Amino acid sequence: MYYIGVDIGGTNISAGAVSESGELLFKKSVKTGKERDYEDILKDIIALVNEIKNEGSDGAKSIGLGCPGSCNKNTGTVEFSGNLNWHNVPLAADVQRAAELPAFLENDANAAAYGEFVSGAAKGLNSAVIITLGTGVGAGIIIDKKVFCGENFAGGEIGHNVISVDGPPCTCGRSGCFEVFSSATGLIRMTDEIMQKNPNSAMHSITEEMGKISARTAFIAAKQGDEAGKKVVDDYIKYLACGIANVINTFQPDCLCIGGGVCNEGDYLLVPLRELVAREIYTRNSAKNTEIFTCKLGNDAGIIGAALANV
Amino acid sequence: MYYIGVDIGGTNISAGAVSESGELLFKKSVKTGKERDYEDILKDIIALVNEIKNEGSDGAKSIGLGCPGSCNKNTGTVEFSGNLNWHNVPLAADVQRAAELPAFLENDANAAAYGEFVSGAAKGLNSAVIITLGTGVGAGIIIDKKVFCGENFAGGEIGHNVISVDGPPCTCGRSGCFEVFSSATGLIRMTDEIMQKNPNSAMHSITEEMGKISARTAFIAAKQGDEAGKKVVDDYIKYLACGIANVINTFQPDCLCIGGGVCNEGDYLLVPLRELVAREIYTRNSAKNTEIFTCKLGNDAGIIGAALANV
Repeated sequence: MYYIGVDIGGTNISAGAVSESGELLFKKSVKTGKERDYEDILKDIIALVNEIKNEGSDGAKSIGLGCPGSCNKNTGTVEFSGNLNWHNVPLAADVQRAAELPAFLENDANAAAYGEFVSGAAKGLNSAVIITLGTGVGAGIIIDKKVFCGENFAGGEIGHNVISVDGPPCTCGRSGCFEVFSSATGLIRMTDEIMQKNPNSAMHSITEEMGKISARTAFIAAKQGDEAGKKVVDDYIKYLACGIANVINTFQPDCLCIGGGVCNEGDYLLVPLRELVAREIYTRNSAKNTEIFTCKLGNDAGIIGAALANV
Repeated sequence: MYYIGVDIGGTNISAGAVSESGELLFKKSVKTGKERDYEDILKDIIALVNEIKNEGSDGAKSIGLGCPGSCNKNTGTVEFSGNLNWHNVPLAADVQRAAELPAFLENDANAAAYGEFVSGAAKGLNSAVIITLGTGVGAGIIIDKKVFCGENFAGGEIGHNVISVDGPPCTCGRSGCFEVFSSATGLIRMTDEIMQKNPNSAMHSITEEMGKISARTAFIAAKQGDEAGKKVVDDYIKYLACGIANVINTFQPDCLCIGGGVCNEGDYLLVPLRELVAREIYTRNSAKNTEIFTCKLGNDAGIIGAALANV
């Protein structure tokens, strides 16, 4: 017996068979071709699901669909997905009818968070917040072993919580959001700003070598002892710690996991980050505080979480 | 049949009999005398509870104790209360033994929030966040009709979430917390700052008349057309809207209720506040958004909520 999970992304659609305990048994993927109509993409999703269904030796029990955007779990309708240009599409019902298995819908960030919770960095706990530091700052929140999404399925948008009123503008229309500072995009912006003020920084030659400023530029320079690079890294960690301390003050979860490319910096990021957060949280003198980990499952988290989030 | 609720404050201890539906049947109170030992205050709590127990015509079913500080609901122990100078006192067990009724412990802000939820401004809903704008900014969070308090009973400390990194210092040790701007204390500080820059503002004569700067000074001046007073009010509402939008982005509750003296300003505060929040939230284009109300129950919320939060 297994559960089918589908992770619908802007570039790829990945699907897999997931055991009850959260093990990914096998997976397959196709290109999304997101410029196409919903009906065409839906056909590919159904074909992929049927492949997984036919290939599993034991019976598939249900299908979980992780999708970007505003996903109504109750109706199974994607109300809006800017990334896919979908408006009110009855995704779960369409897949359920075609694949003849119960189908459930979940927001993709929530699905990935649930994946880390059920078989990744937060396994075995009661609550967790998973924060992905990518192009933006996404988050999934698990309370009492369940995905928390508020009354309109849009809760947990902590990337768009302001940490610096009157700060730099955010894509969401606010100013100074957590995402403005702690996303890879924000890190690149801060790197660029400090490079312009420091023409002798090693970050310039690193950028020339790599072809462009990346989220790694400042970390590479800082590790070489470059002062301007260190300043970028220190600033980045300061803002990240601020946003994370806010999340801990709010939810006091068992653990908080961060994912995304910047986590490859390992202890160079984590050690000072944990120190700063420990100083900032309201419960700094308590016996029991939230642990901070990095995510473990990478892209598989979305498949695993989608498969199991609503069964 | 009724439930006894006790609200233990720094100044008064209030207790009452509460019906199953959240009606406060009658109440009594005594001075806390917080400079006394735990044992002495405990005796007064037990005496008050016994008065309520003997006076109710029908049988009392249980006792709920709302207490400031870090309250372990599972053990019934007040782990720390700075206000009362209590360290690891087994309050619920002590009251239960003496009054011969099951006793439960809850943080006082959570109890007051639950009171508003069960029979005040948020009655009949599924989720709510209640924010009290007093000396500090307290909050109580209700998810799926239950008090949310995180894994260590300290969740929901949103007053100590930073909205202005590098902002003015907060009593908690961070800088630029929501509380620094949106508490009555913060409003008085901002009033004082702007008065100093505006020697001709009407706020000076208002202050002379009232004897000191209060949280009302700027509102009185603004309503008289005083420009500096308007600036204080506009700033106050801007920061308050920022913090509230953060809370809505995070929890997407059915409603958010604000309480505290500043709410007496009514629509003068609420109308621009609602407008600003509506522009700031991530779901500004959604059909279903959080409604913003003012609290209804005043000090009775704490008694009602304590009585019913854990039965």
